[in-house]
Amino acid sequence: MHLIVIKIGGNIIDDPAKLSAFLKDFATLDGYKILVHGGGKIATDIGKKLGIEPNYVNGRRITDEQTLNLVTMVYAGLINKNIVAELQAGGCNAIGLTGADGCILPATKRPVKDIDYGFVGDVKSDNINSELINKFLHTGLTPVFAPLTYSAGGLLNTNADTIAQEVAQAMSHHMPVQLVYCFEKKGVLIDAEDDNSAINRITAKDFDELKEKGIISGGMIPKLENAFTAIDKGVESVIIGHADDLHALISGDSGTCIR
Amino acid sequence: MHLIVIKIGGNIIDDPAKLSAFLKDFATLDGYKILVHGGGKIATDIGKKLGIEPNYVNGRRITDEQTLNLVTMVYAGLINKNIVAELQAGGCNAIGLTGADGCILPATKRPVKDIDYGFVGDVKSDNINSELINKFLHTGLTPVFAPLTYSAGGLLNTNADTIAQEVAQAMSHHMPVQLVYCFEKKGVLIDAEDDNSAINRITAKDFDELKEKGIISGGMIPKLENAFTAIDKGVESVIIGHADDLHALISGDSGTCIR
Repeated sequence: MHLIVIKIGGNIIDDPAKLSAFLKDFATLDGYKILVHGGGKIATDIGKKLGIEPNYVNGRRITDEQTLNLVTMVYAGLINKNIVAELQAGGCNAIGLTGADGCILPATKRPVKDIDYGFVGDVKSDNINSELINKFLHTGLTPVFAPLTYSAGGLLNTNADTIAQEVAQAMSHHMPVQLVYCFEKKGVLIDAEDDNSAINRITAKDFDELKEKGIISGGMIPKLENAFTAIDKGVESVIIGHADDLHALISGDSGTCIR
Repeated sequence: MHLIVIKIGGNIIDDPAKLSAFLKDFATLDGYKILVHGGGKIATDIGKKLGIEPNYVNGRRITDEQTLNLVTMVYAGLINKNIVAELQAGGCNAIGLTGADGCILPATKRPVKDIDYGFVGDVKSDNINSELINKFLHTGLTPVFAPLTYSAGGLLNTNADTIAQEVAQAMSHHMPVQLVYCFEKKGVLIDAEDDNSAINRITAKDFDELKEKGIISGGMIPKLENAFTAIDKGVESVIIGHADDLHALISGDSGTCIR
């Protein structure tokens, strides 16, 4: 049996109707699956009401203690547990987790160089407790990860894309893994203005060419670099596409596939 | 091997130094153990900042939708995950759970009679997924329950004392269970003014007599009634005592023991 690791971002989480539609699709997927979710604007909105202003140093977001408490409430509490409840209602036996639960995602607090990012964790697939994830899957549970990891000092804020990638890599020692990034575009676009211009497949050679021509640029470059790293580290395929098309992404009928 | 189910209340959670001391003691307890925690004033404080006022009808606290979101953030996020992280740091392999996770605590939304309590759940030991709790214990995990249960409609606010009692009853089908209620008194007091007047043991007959004489009164009556129910339903012993004395409570050197 193979495993699908799916990441959804803040843009879906911020839209309750879209999130519900996505979770209905996710609940009906066959076989082993894991969901990793990001944050969303809701943490910023609640933070404002609590008088917690986003803290930036040199344009980089800092996780100070107040912000860590805020994201622990919102990511691990409000968002994670409501996703779990909605998946349960859809017949999917979800379990919500942070990296501290079962010490499943041990991380390193990011070392201070030019910037002190605060309570931010870097997670590496080799340290992930993939045995426990495997046990959960074989018990019929579907792990739902909030973007929080753990070090001996406590919880740490961690990028959800990275968690999805590292979990997929770690689990590829146990079974074949497909990694799916759901976002607001239909895939890697040849024409940024045309949402129907998604490339069906992309190889490392294609990527280099498209990057050189300036067709792939901006935030898509690190996304794809991470995807190729995942493939190098044993993940069978990475798919990038629209959250509305989950079933089509997995069957290969939508999105951009990286092998 | 036997199991200890321990409940801590809001008064400990509201005091970070007390909570840390308690968690250090809890982390070092041998054998199978489960922690159930209550809420505390922190939810009310955060609610006030968010403009969520406590909602009372006929003197009874109501869980409206805003309050449910608040307690989901604070109980399942902030409190639960910080307890888990602190236990992990103490060498205890904790996993934070609500009733929705693994559908472990299915509940019934309280029916509307005189009062509509809102999103409040009633949980019964027969419906608890004790098989999954048992699996977690045998995997070396220590479940930490936030006071939230689950019905098909979503999360529900539930009294932590009740969760502890019903979990203890459900688990007594798998192994001998000791149920420990930690609070701010040294046990059932003969003299309400003297914290050193705790009775060492109490039987159903003693309870009836002490109730009649007015020595046991107020909130202690339902606490003890629930303790005797737990014994009737298969729990080996129930201990009521001070959170500072955890090891002494379990060894029988402190607190009031109900058998």
